[in-house]
Amino acid sequence: MARTRPTTAYLSAENIVRLVETVGLSRFFAGVASRIERDFLRWEQFDKSARVACHSRDGVIELMPIADESEFAFKYVNGHPKNTATGLPTVMAFGVLADVLTGTPVFLSELTLVTAIRTAAMSVVAARALARPDSRTMALIGNGAQSEFQALAFRDLIGIRTVRLYDVDPAATRKLVNNLRGRGLEIVVCASAAEAARGADIVTTVTADKTNATILTADMIEPGMHINAVGGDCPGKTELDRRVLEMGPVFVEFEPQSRIEGEVQQMPADFPVTELWRVLAGQAGGREHAQQVTVFDSVGFALEDYSALAFMRDAASEYGIGEALELILTAENPKDLFGALRVAEHTDSVAAAA
Amino acid sequence: MARTRPTTAYLSAENIVRLVETVGLSRFFAGVASRIERDFLRWEQFDKSARVACHSRDGVIELMPIADESEFAFKYVNGHPKNTATGLPTVMAFGVLADVLTGTPVFLSELTLVTAIRTAAMSVVAARALARPDSRTMALIGNGAQSEFQALAFRDLIGIRTVRLYDVDPAATRKLVNNLRGRGLEIVVCASAAEAARGADIVTTVTADKTNATILTADMIEPGMHINAVGGDCPGKTELDRRVLEMGPVFVEFEPQSRIEGEVQQMPADFPVTELWRVLAGQAGGREHAQQVTVFDSVGFALEDYSALAFMRDAASEYGIGEALELILTAENPKDLFGALRVAEHTDSVAAAA
Repeated sequence: MARTRPTTAYLSAENIVRLVETVGLSRFFAGVASRIERDFLRWEQFDKSARVACHSRDGVIELMPIADESEFAFKYVNGHPKNTATGLPTVMAFGVLADVLTGTPVFLSELTLVTAIRTAAMSVVAARALARPDSRTMALIGNGAQSEFQALAFRDLIGIRTVRLYDVDPAATRKLVNNLRGRGLEIVVCASAAEAARGADIVTTVTADKTNATILTADMIEPGMHINAVGGDCPGKTELDRRVLEMGPVFVEFEPQSRIEGEVQQMPADFPVTELWRVLAGQAGGREHAQQVTVFDSVGFALEDYSALAFMRDAASEYGIGEALELILTAENPKDLFGALRVAEHTDSVAAAA
Repeated sequence: MARTRPTTAYLSAENIVRLVETVGLSRFFAGVASRIERDFLRWEQFDKSARVACHSRDGVIELMPIADESEFAFKYVNGHPKNTATGLPTVMAFGVLADVLTGTPVFLSELTLVTAIRTAAMSVVAARALARPDSRTMALIGNGAQSEFQALAFRDLIGIRTVRLYDVDPAATRKLVNNLRGRGLEIVVCASAAEAARGADIVTTVTADKTNATILTADMIEPGMHINAVGGDCPGKTELDRRVLEMGPVFVEFEPQSRIEGEVQQMPADFPVTELWRVLAGQAGGREHAQQVTVFDSVGFALEDYSALAFMRDAASEYGIGEALELILTAENPKDLFGALRVAEHTDSVAAAA
């Protein structure tokens, strides 16, 4: 035998859809959220770095690596808001898990769908720690590709019963209304961000434009609100007026990355922020009282993708979904890479002679 | 139709072997070397960064990104010298090309075999600029997985006729001798690195141990030699005694990375080095006279992987080799990621009913 068998498990786009449907979206949210919490609680075991970003005129391509003692993970992800005009998604992603001990890439997966799921799961983990426990109404400003996932994760894991929707593009809101219909949520379509925010317990902003926008201004914020700011996630891309950030404590994922990419890029370097893992670990306080405004300035951190990939790998294995890719050439004798060519040459000659 | 067709071209390990055999190893070396030269000549068009490295006790896992205005590329690669004890390769790699305009990953390929090919091609590009044109004898110290590729690339593109081999492991040398037999090279097996270097025009060091080794010491260096130092390529992993670096001008790929990872990590921060692209572009001198010692301190730079990936993508397309992967989920309506789930649910119910 020329080479040993493939060892990289692979989930294609089709198989990811099968996996999510087999597990069930609610259980998938719960599984990823619980895995994120577990991994955030062992925060200091991870080798963390800010992502590597390649910015171009119309978008960004990023690599997001992270590792602990036994596993290395990275996600490839882009953000190109103009893509939808030509039928392509704004965000496309895939991810890899590798074995730190040997360097073998053991799992490769589509990650566009699960990026939306893990972002919603992350929002839920933060809201469980920061939003008022009696939160039942959520404003959803930005009704694009991620909005259904935010709505359903908050329905299932936070107890949201009413969503108040707004998007500058009415077609996006119509799509969201269609997708949420019959799923146990009261849906209120609003004419402005201010109207959507009115009376909401939680305000989620998840817009896609690569600009310093001011989707939320201070006059829209009511006492006790939790702001789940998801869409501002790279330099020059923010959603909150800076005065909103001054209205209550601001929580972030990984501070060095959030200072560059988050809403807090608008603030001085010494503007106080708290890393969320410290709240989960009991090392820092979260919400102090029911009238307080809390802000989760989410940018998406590599650890969340690791958590999601680990959950997917385990679930795919449990349900027997996926394929094996021969992504890495393994020679019969690992010190004889050249031998892989020679053996194949021999095989080819035999084939040609037959 | 739920989703559009896959758009990521994929070369598995098996197809890479087919591609190299179809193109022919000599033409593959020549094609990659010429592509590297072309890309080095437009050095300033690339967005360059040092690689992201995750070091663990027994090895390293790295992501090596690079981009120009139209293409983004990265390589995943590990280095785990102890792997061979358990039948795994020391180095495993795969790479991706993506479209900067849209962020679409358009090409995914095995890259272990081609990492060895592109490293040899890079060595050739440097030697063409730095070694004496009448070089006919090369010492090859370190006879592991990359050594055949160095020997054959230098045979085909530099005119090397004699190789002088040494490895601390005699089995490695036996393997190399077997693989090179009948390929038009005079082979001299030597008992030490010093013996191998004796009388050589070019000395290639390509050992794998992750230590500060001194494979080459100053007393082994003769006037006019070109040193092709390939194996020292991460912090704490060097092959040359620092006095060897003081014997002649030192050329590197990308200075900020080489200061951290190359042989010059042993030298003060102001130790003079010249980036090779400047020699190719006529902006800096290379070898000045036949008695000069020249050193190419090679660590492997992301641009070389980009050049190799671009060459492979074009060759695979020319010869019709490869598959298509559904690596990215593309919803019918790109703003409706959630719709990919719903449509599939529908499909599943129909299938279940049938």
